[in-house]
Amino acid sequence: MRIVVIGGMAAGATAAQFSRKTDRKAEVTIIGKEPHPIYSKCGLPYSLSGRIPTFERLVEFDETWFRQFHIGLQLGTEVTSVDHSARTLTTCDLRGGREGTVQYDRLIIATGASPWMPPIEGAYSEPGVLKEGVHLIRTLGDGKRLSGNTWRDSRAVIVGGGLIGMEFAEALTIRGVHVGIVEMQSELLLASLDEDMARAARQIIDRSRTPVFTGHVARAVNGDQRAESVTIEEAATGKRTELPADIVLISTGTRGNTDLAVKAGCALGVTGQIKVNSRCETSVPGIWAAGDCTEYVDLVTGAPVAVGMGTVAARQGRTAGTNAAGGRSELPPGVLGTRVTEAFGMHLAGVGPTEAQLRKAGIEPVIGRFVGSTLPDYIPGGHEITVKVLAHPEGGRLLGAQIVGTSRVHQRINSFAVAILAGMTVEQFSKLETAYAPPIAPTLDVITLACDVALMKMRRR
Amino acid sequence: MRIVVIGGMAAGATAAQFSRKTDRKAEVTIIGKEPHPIYSKCGLPYSLSGRIPTFERLVEFDETWFRQFHIGLQLGTEVTSVDHSARTLTTCDLRGGREGTVQYDRLIIATGASPWMPPIEGAYSEPGVLKEGVHLIRTLGDGKRLSGNTWRDSRAVIVGGGLIGMEFAEALTIRGVHVGIVEMQSELLLASLDEDMARAARQIIDRSRTPVFTGHVARAVNGDQRAESVTIEEAATGKRTELPADIVLISTGTRGNTDLAVKAGCALGVTGQIKVNSRCETSVPGIWAAGDCTEYVDLVTGAPVAVGMGTVAARQGRTAGTNAAGGRSELPPGVLGTRVTEAFGMHLAGVGPTEAQLRKAGIEPVIGRFVGSTLPDYIPGGHEITVKVLAHPEGGRLLGAQIVGTSRVHQRINSFAVAILAGMTVEQFSKLETAYAPPIAPTLDVITLACDVALMKMRRR
Repeated sequence: MRIVVIGGMAAGATAAQFSRKTDRKAEVTIIGKEPHPIYSKCGLPYSLSGRIPTFERLVEFDETWFRQFHIGLQLGTEVTSVDHSARTLTTCDLRGGREGTVQYDRLIIATGASPWMPPIEGAYSEPGVLKEGVHLIRTLGDGKRLSGNTWRDSRAVIVGGGLIGMEFAEALTIRGVHVGIVEMQSELLLASLDEDMARAARQIIDRSRTPVFTGHVARAVNGDQRAESVTIEEAATGKRTELPADIVLISTGTRGNTDLAVKAGCALGVTGQIKVNSRCETSVPGIWAAGDCTEYVDLVTGAPVAVGMGTVAARQGRTAGTNAAGGRSELPPGVLGTRVTEAFGMHLAGVGPTEAQLRKAGIEPVIGRFVGSTLPDYIPGGHEITVKVLAHPEGGRLLGAQIVGTSRVHQRINSFAVAILAGMTVEQFSKLETAYAPPIAPTLDVITLACDVALMKMRRR
Repeated sequence: MRIVVIGGMAAGATAAQFSRKTDRKAEVTIIGKEPHPIYSKCGLPYSLSGRIPTFERLVEFDETWFRQFHIGLQLGTEVTSVDHSARTLTTCDLRGGREGTVQYDRLIIATGASPWMPPIEGAYSEPGVLKEGVHLIRTLGDGKRLSGNTWRDSRAVIVGGGLIGMEFAEALTIRGVHVGIVEMQSELLLASLDEDMARAARQIIDRSRTPVFTGHVARAVNGDQRAESVTIEEAATGKRTELPADIVLISTGTRGNTDLAVKAGCALGVTGQIKVNSRCETSVPGIWAAGDCTEYVDLVTGAPVAVGMGTVAARQGRTAGTNAAGGRSELPPGVLGTRVTEAFGMHLAGVGPTEAQLRKAGIEPVIGRFVGSTLPDYIPGGHEITVKVLAHPEGGRLLGAQIVGTSRVHQRINSFAVAILAGMTVEQFSKLETAYAPPIAPTLDVITLACDVALMKMRRR
């Protein structure tokens, strides 16, 4: 049996590995557009900042590893078309331009996503070629191109104040660049946090004195040969401001690469991404899909969501690869959306839908919010930490949680992820015996105290 | 209504507070033997080491707080007898020796526990008076007495290598004392960890070059006026060794203070402690009990266990106080036993029964053990971390988990605590979307990978 995986990153490489594990006799091949085998895209900001010494270090498994594992690798190769009735792919070698064909029995599409470019005048010097100094970052190659800039005393404008934008903003700041952040919405990080939690995060970020322009849209990149400034416009007033910028980094989200799937007849969902079920099957028998090109459902609301996280991609890859090779693997009935980052001393974590996403799904959540300390009051070294839980108004099932602070934030979110996966209520969670020791955590932890607040509100209704 | 609480520490003070909250008109009084209002006993090692600046700082709520809350405080007062048919207590003022009586309608017993002294020759200079240099530590007064020793270049022997023994051993080491640890069992920390995990912990502790004598029993404290040395005996061979010691700190567990409960007719359980149910009721109507003097059940095995943790004490106090005042509060159907500490750079965490405790309950667990890193391989700064899960052989329900490492250990245990409370299986847990970002945690976290190992073993059977 010939299993072909299109795409060799988190979803694709994991899929190939699990196909190989499941059927030791199958011929397993990865066809990847990029010249590198699997590397961590999430690591790019840290290679840029120097915390990870080189970009090459991001490569997680090298070509030798794939050979040893008997997985074929065709890197630097684009799949240009697919004829699923004939089980044939047409490929193009991106270095030489040579065309080829590849036969398969089963196909796994893990084509990932590409950065989305908002309409900004002057971002391109000619069609398809970004102006010197303007960057979209998605690949290791993009990272290297960005790192070719002069750092010290440069000025950068980051367009997009989401998780990734914040990580790159911090990386450039560490490199000595003067960074400003432009965000269209009323606050940073609103895709990850509710407005009140995003404001708490913003207060910590503001201590770094990084200029932030919320409620502003980037309208134009100015400069003839290369970027010299960015014109931004305040959405409410239409007032325009020009920000000097040697570097313009655009981080306004991604769109799944779905062209091939469409050619193969796979149905797309309402988010425009490839629809898959809990076995990572597409609508076409014999074709599986995994990772950032897919649409799956939110575990809590059941609403379709575009998958865009390495954790989910790896798990989908495992499921797609196992099932394509004749094994049996099933994902949970939806995505939890567990998310964390840290930037400018601010640590954030979230799981499950935000308030806005719940309301869109017709649920008006009960809210439990608690501001406490990471340690007992009597021991020095504690840090303020804010926990918010969202519970179902009938019965109190935990639907989501968010945490913001400067320390010991991240692992706390996993407890809520377990609880949501298990369908636990805030009442059950509030009884949890949490880890306690004076230098570690308080007797009653902020994670249970936030549930107590939600519970009290429910009882008062 | 007059509610009297005997004992004013974690369980007692919390009980009084929740009685007051539940019934604003009740007369609520705490009678406490110690001269201080509620303080953190768990904080004593950190006041000793200097991390917490003074012993007084351990006091969590002072007398003014209790007054404001309209809770009566009779401190430094021992309850010497109880006549439950007459609803009368006899008290003795420990400073003046004056006797008194106190009437009550409802009684909450939160008398805590006292250190258990193993039979060591020469530990006492006269009956009831410890030899100079010999210490049992339980109270703030005990801590102050210990801190009266000369630190620099003193030599200390810690008898008992459990959690508390290790915390005090580290505190004395920080103070410049040369510390040796004597433990009867074959390894340190066996009440908290399985033998393999305790060995992993020991490897980290050994980096500090602290002398540890496992498989040894303390036989005698030598010295006429004051402690000069400790004679220890190897259990296997009977070979005796003399360890020089200016300070002998005995940390070999506690026994609940149950005398009054027995006088009041409350039934004791097989552990010798006061039996309570999930509403903290004793066998005598009108008497509740909470904290370290009680016996409750292990959530996983259903076996009776002596409660000995601040987290459980506080939660029982809340339940006892609420119910005694006519409210409704219920604990989970048992104790999870979530436990954490750090000492000598070693971080440990556990939840649920150990392998030995499961076998005693007739369960031969499936074991998943995974040694990984706290961070992805490609980013510097990761630390080795070992995770072990214990699962039910039929169905794979999570029964227990233990984690040992040098960093980012503690909050990870709470995820397992939630899963055990929710009755989750290793298969469900292995699908958890954990928090991932390069500087925070790997794509697939050690907590889920340990469950994958258990799952593979179950499938192979």
